[in-house]
Amino acid sequence: MSPSIAASKTFRAIDVIRKKRDAIELSQGEIAGLVNAFTKGEIPDYQVSAWLMAVVLRGMTRAETAALTDAMLRSGEVLTLSDLPARKVDKHSTGGVGDKTSLVLAPLVAAAGIAVPMISGRGLGHTGGTLDKLESIPGFNVNLPVAEFRRLLEVCGCAMIGQTAEIAPADRKLYALRDVTGTVESPYLICASIMSKKLAEGIDALVLDVKTGSGAFMKNEKDAVFLAELMVETGERMGKQVVALITDMDQPLGNMIGNALEVVEVIEVLKGGGPEDLKDLCLELAGWMLHLGRATKTVEEGKKRSAELIFSGSALEKFRKMVELQGGDAHVLDDAGRLPLARQTMQVAAAKAGYIGSMQCEQMGTACVILGGGRERKEDSVDPAVGIVLHKKVGDRVNVGEPIATIHYNDESRGERARQLISESCQIGDVAPKPRPLINKVIRKS
Amino acid sequence: MSPSIAASKTFRAIDVIRKKRDAIELSQGEIAGLVNAFTKGEIPDYQVSAWLMAVVLRGMTRAETAALTDAMLRSGEVLTLSDLPARKVDKHSTGGVGDKTSLVLAPLVAAAGIAVPMISGRGLGHTGGTLDKLESIPGFNVNLPVAEFRRLLEVCGCAMIGQTAEIAPADRKLYALRDVTGTVESPYLICASIMSKKLAEGIDALVLDVKTGSGAFMKNEKDAVFLAELMVETGERMGKQVVALITDMDQPLGNMIGNALEVVEVIEVLKGGGPEDLKDLCLELAGWMLHLGRATKTVEEGKKRSAELIFSGSALEKFRKMVELQGGDAHVLDDAGRLPLARQTMQVAAAKAGYIGSMQCEQMGTACVILGGGRERKEDSVDPAVGIVLHKKVGDRVNVGEPIATIHYNDESRGERARQLISESCQIGDVAPKPRPLINKVIRKS
Repeated sequence: MSPSIAASKTFRAIDVIRKKRDAIELSQGEIAGLVNAFTKGEIPDYQVSAWLMAVVLRGMTRAETAALTDAMLRSGEVLTLSDLPARKVDKHSTGGVGDKTSLVLAPLVAAAGIAVPMISGRGLGHTGGTLDKLESIPGFNVNLPVAEFRRLLEVCGCAMIGQTAEIAPADRKLYALRDVTGTVESPYLICASIMSKKLAEGIDALVLDVKTGSGAFMKNEKDAVFLAELMVETGERMGKQVVALITDMDQPLGNMIGNALEVVEVIEVLKGGGPEDLKDLCLELAGWMLHLGRATKTVEEGKKRSAELIFSGSALEKFRKMVELQGGDAHVLDDAGRLPLARQTMQVAAAKAGYIGSMQCEQMGTACVILGGGRERKEDSVDPAVGIVLHKKVGDRVNVGEPIATIHYNDESRGERARQLISESCQIGDVAPKPRPLINKVIRKS
Repeated sequence: MSPSIAASKTFRAIDVIRKKRDAIELSQGEIAGLVNAFTKGEIPDYQVSAWLMAVVLRGMTRAETAALTDAMLRSGEVLTLSDLPARKVDKHSTGGVGDKTSLVLAPLVAAAGIAVPMISGRGLGHTGGTLDKLESIPGFNVNLPVAEFRRLLEVCGCAMIGQTAEIAPADRKLYALRDVTGTVESPYLICASIMSKKLAEGIDALVLDVKTGSGAFMKNEKDAVFLAELMVETGERMGKQVVALITDMDQPLGNMIGNALEVVEVIEVLKGGGPEDLKDLCLELAGWMLHLGRATKTVEEGKKRSAELIFSGSALEKFRKMVELQGGDAHVLDDAGRLPLARQTMQVAAAKAGYIGSMQCEQMGTACVILGGGRERKEDSVDPAVGIVLHKKVGDRVNVGEPIATIHYNDESRGERARQLISESCQIGDVAPKPRPLINKVIRKS
């Protein structure tokens, strides 16, 4: 009210809130001040949630987004892996249904001599999470201290762990608040959340897999491209090489959905088999990772080299080594029966003949959550054994009564609910739909 | 994430926040649910502040604004004055510098047989407050229980008190949160805050004095008109007759600023004297109050009748009675020396000859706060004796060294700071400025 009286040189959250509300660009110092004070508990949640809503509705400039990412990154420990001679490259996906590429890529890219320090998340809502999939391997430990993570990277070239308390604590605190204040859905906040955690891994380069379609967070391609461009520019501003692929998530990736089932499919791919879409996407992402990791001159060479590493068995052996080093039962690679299995299965049959025109992909993920394979809330536990095996994908021909999918379940009524939801989510038409490309676009620094 | 699983029929704050964020109109039930839950402490501040920021940036429809006003009104006690035979009419000003019309209007309008149940506020920032002015009268008690307030209305026709804990508690709680989250500046929230408190007084009609200019909350007329239209429509939707006058606050109203000094000027006006601008505005507002209170057929008649009530001494005697009934020393009406006086005075002299081109009116109010006559923060106490007496107003001719104002102070250094600020805020030019009208517009139901 009275700036002439109340002038103060210290950081005041209210001033930063008002500026963002009025669409005035915040300085790096203002953003860092807010993030630091919040992380230390010096400013109340109600001020930060008002600021977050102003960010959702006013947006951020590229400089603000980079400043927010930087402040969140610096709120915790940043791994220094400079003593590792290899280039450090990671991949991050914005999440989808049946997306198990991380489990293929970490050993595959490590087999090419690149270090892959992968810190992943758990499933939430209709999307699965890498940690849940890994934990379906009996004994696999994703909770390693940073020192052990670093040792495994030296010994094996790859390691896959969950987020530690030391990495980007500001992101954890901010996310918890965003989750309950309707402020999750902002590309700027999503960008800062993803990039702060990934850059804390001490990587040289990052390949982003930004999903679009009915099973993705970003349902339309325009939003996906916007987020991808934001993340690429933020990473580049912070001195990292970043490339984003906009990829299709309008139907599940591969044929298996559910934690142990997805590990089965990962092993298939690492053995040279597996469904085409999953194989293609893994090779594409691996090609980029090898290229950014300077293992090959071009992406095309990177893809070729990756295919060779699968054919030779090197990628599978790297996976075996990683599983062993992280305490998991590596015999699952030879005997999938050692993975947790659901007690029962039932079929989802086609109600009529025709072509699968579309699959409502978010509903597919939700069906897996209903079975117990995912989480509605963070506190929920996950049943590793349940899931869905697809026999048909979009564009496939079906006859009346022919099985579209098999449901693996442990609870009859949940199985039945999942069956209904899957049945509803598959639309069958008279003509085959136009195929959608798997890779829509590549976004890189212009 | 999974509406098909998490469907719930109960009120969820997060859904209301998301809807407002996405500019979807909220139902009356959703708004009432949020306000009620917040008032009862059932939803956390951080959710409400995110919602408030979404309201600031997305706005509200007229129906939403009325629903919010209604929910805030119903959060506490609503006075029932239907046993009083007189029409109940109040006036509310959005606040300014030197605005002491309430103290004139309550007794003046009551003298015409209309009941004026006035519940007022304290000064904050550069604007003064009615309660602080009243309390400069020795013994005057603004903290009356509702039963006593009602009795005084019966006996005297007017009474002036502060807000009680029973009236619109949701407004108090919301305002405290808005104050620290940058969500004060929204016409929708301002409208609901003002109207919920005023309608809780059990009135039949309301005259709004919406200030515009450098000393007002709404610096430009467009914003003032927008707020005025919103308040008029909200009141009418709730079955009350409401008229708003858009009036000038580009320079202080009258010649005196400061609590006891303003009481002196009020008494002057009630005795038939006082400065023209203050007299004119009081008669204009009183004219409308008499008209809406059905004491006269037209506003013009209302103004004429008001002038007569001043001339006859009836308004002054009503003021005397009210002061006595509320425990105040009514001898101040005959001897202004009984009001608290500052120990020292100093002059603000014109730095050059010419015409007063403008007065930065907010700075004038701030000068009074610096003297100790207002509050920077709610907790501050107020010195009733200090203030400013203006000898010149905008458009007046001054010579070099001629006094523009006299400062009444109790602290030398504060006096000096105020003198500098007043001196800076008066711009002196070679030509007389075009006069601004006192009443810019009248807003009523179309």
